[in-house]
Amino acid sequence: MEKIPTLEQIQQAHLRIRPFIHQTPVMSSSLINALAGCYIYFKCENFQKTGAFKMRGAHNAVLSLPSTKISRGVATHSSGNHAQALAKAAANVGCMAYIVMPESAPEVKVNAVKDYGAEIFFCAPTLQAREQTLLSVLKDTGATLIHPYDDYDIIAGQATVALELIEEISDLNILITPVGGGGLLSGTCLAASYLLPQAVLIAGEPEGADDAFRSLQSGIIHPSIDPQTIADGLLTSLSKRTFGIIKKHVKEIVTVSDQEILRAMRLVWERMKILIEPSAAVPLAAIFTKPEVFRGKRVGLILTGGNVDLEKISFV
Amino acid sequence: MEKIPTLEQIQQAHLRIRPFIHQTPVMSSSLINALAGCYIYFKCENFQKTGAFKMRGAHNAVLSLPSTKISRGVATHSSGNHAQALAKAAANVGCMAYIVMPESAPEVKVNAVKDYGAEIFFCAPTLQAREQTLLSVLKDTGATLIHPYDDYDIIAGQATVALELIEEISDLNILITPVGGGGLLSGTCLAASYLLPQAVLIAGEPEGADDAFRSLQSGIIHPSIDPQTIADGLLTSLSKRTFGIIKKHVKEIVTVSDQEILRAMRLVWERMKILIEPSAAVPLAAIFTKPEVFRGKRVGLILTGGNVDLEKISFV
Repeated sequence: MEKIPTLEQIQQAHLRIRPFIHQTPVMSSSLINALAGCYIYFKCENFQKTGAFKMRGAHNAVLSLPSTKISRGVATHSSGNHAQALAKAAANVGCMAYIVMPESAPEVKVNAVKDYGAEIFFCAPTLQAREQTLLSVLKDTGATLIHPYDDYDIIAGQATVALELIEEISDLNILITPVGGGGLLSGTCLAASYLLPQAVLIAGEPEGADDAFRSLQSGIIHPSIDPQTIADGLLTSLSKRTFGIIKKHVKEIVTVSDQEILRAMRLVWERMKILIEPSAAVPLAAIFTKPEVFRGKRVGLILTGGNVDLEKISFV
Repeated sequence: MEKIPTLEQIQQAHLRIRPFIHQTPVMSSSLINALAGCYIYFKCENFQKTGAFKMRGAHNAVLSLPSTKISRGVATHSSGNHAQALAKAAANVGCMAYIVMPESAPEVKVNAVKDYGAEIFFCAPTLQAREQTLLSVLKDTGATLIHPYDDYDIIAGQATVALELIEEISDLNILITPVGGGGLLSGTCLAASYLLPQAVLIAGEPEGADDAFRSLQSGIIHPSIDPQTIADGLLTSLSKRTFGIIKKHVKEIVTVSDQEILRAMRLVWERMKILIEPSAAVPLAAIFTKPEVFRGKRVGLILTGGNVDLEKISFV
């Protein structure tokens, strides 16, 4: 897809990926509403297949490829949810996935990607090594690069989260997501601009990885350099395609500390009895950080994923 | 209720408590099915209000009292889910709840009971102190004792979990619950005997609190003496009413170690993205312990609650 996805293209993406994804539930908690002073509708992509919304974009991108390209496979670099999602999407259409991962990736994630039948190429955990390894994989295999977010097919796929949420819950005043590379946020912006143009778009971002916050303030993309946060899904920089959309639609990016992220995550675990990963807790932490922005509003909040590394979490 | 609840009484209990409870979802996991070698339908009472199925029995018992008794309040001894459930039920009907709790009860549970407006009486953490304190509370207040499980109204209320599960998922071959005092297990037996008489009833029990296992083997109630297990909802002994039903209907009680309980709990957290407490993981641990009993079967499994003390759980 060459241009910003239209509503029709997002709807087509939804039809295309539907056989491969869950329509995830929307949950709410009267206790959390009381604490937050607003009405929050949690769209539970932690219950999505492979445990994260990334399934949507990856499937839309792979399913949109011409068969000549599909036959040569797809490739990406990721140690996170996009890696699993792309491996699963490739398995679903019957092509190879070549995934470049840092040697430092947790074994559980490496195994998950392997279990879907993908081939893994390890590299040193630097941007340069990653890009070089990916280039050589692309050259050797002839596979098509599926970027985690700088891709309008990916963005159209991620937009289907908000599509479902807006269809289910009417009259939302605010939509809020986390922001890392901006694929989900830009897709959410598009769906809302078409279907709920009066809604305010807000993102939450970790203080230790606040490149999107700074980019929105200055109007130019600030790269994410040495990000430090427990929200390990939000380390990447915005891209030309995602920032173009975000700049136009997002009203505010609220930054939150790791402590606030952990507190929000624990609240969701304890009160809603669902597992979310730290990155997914960032929007709720943002609501608690700036309650005056949300007071009395109907807020659609996307819980992005549930792939938490339990051995790294301690509440003691 | 003087006699073993009939199907009609269980259905009436369901109508009676419905305004106050959630109809909880039934979930499944293809990965867990593959690991277990059977088809498991998880009835998610961890999503029940106050985080556990105990809401059902407590509400049925309180709502079944004559108004003369309701006006004098209700009382029980419990440091666990029954305490919260009874406090909430009393709040819902507008009467007082008097809860006897051991001084050693975790602050979070004490606060939850207080938040529902109940009055708490602390006692030493011994059976004798508990019973004496309860007797004196009953005498001073004129309140009605609502026993956690040795009560047919409680049993009829807990039976509504299986009622909903059997209505939603047809043709279950096996129903499995944990067993502590036996309220849920005996209620499940009754619902199944009326609605799904061909189903096999099985319970899971911690090795360190295997009094029900021994009772079923010998045919007489063995008290639970100094139980030692992480499954803190399953420490109590069977009662005359619950054992009478269990003896008649339960085919087998499978005992499991704490290590197996923790492993099953972690699997549910990681793969289903839902929080369950250790007691709720006991049936799944039982399936993994004796897979030959379940192989190829359609198994209805009640996830009893999600009130886990996160500060006590470590997966490191």
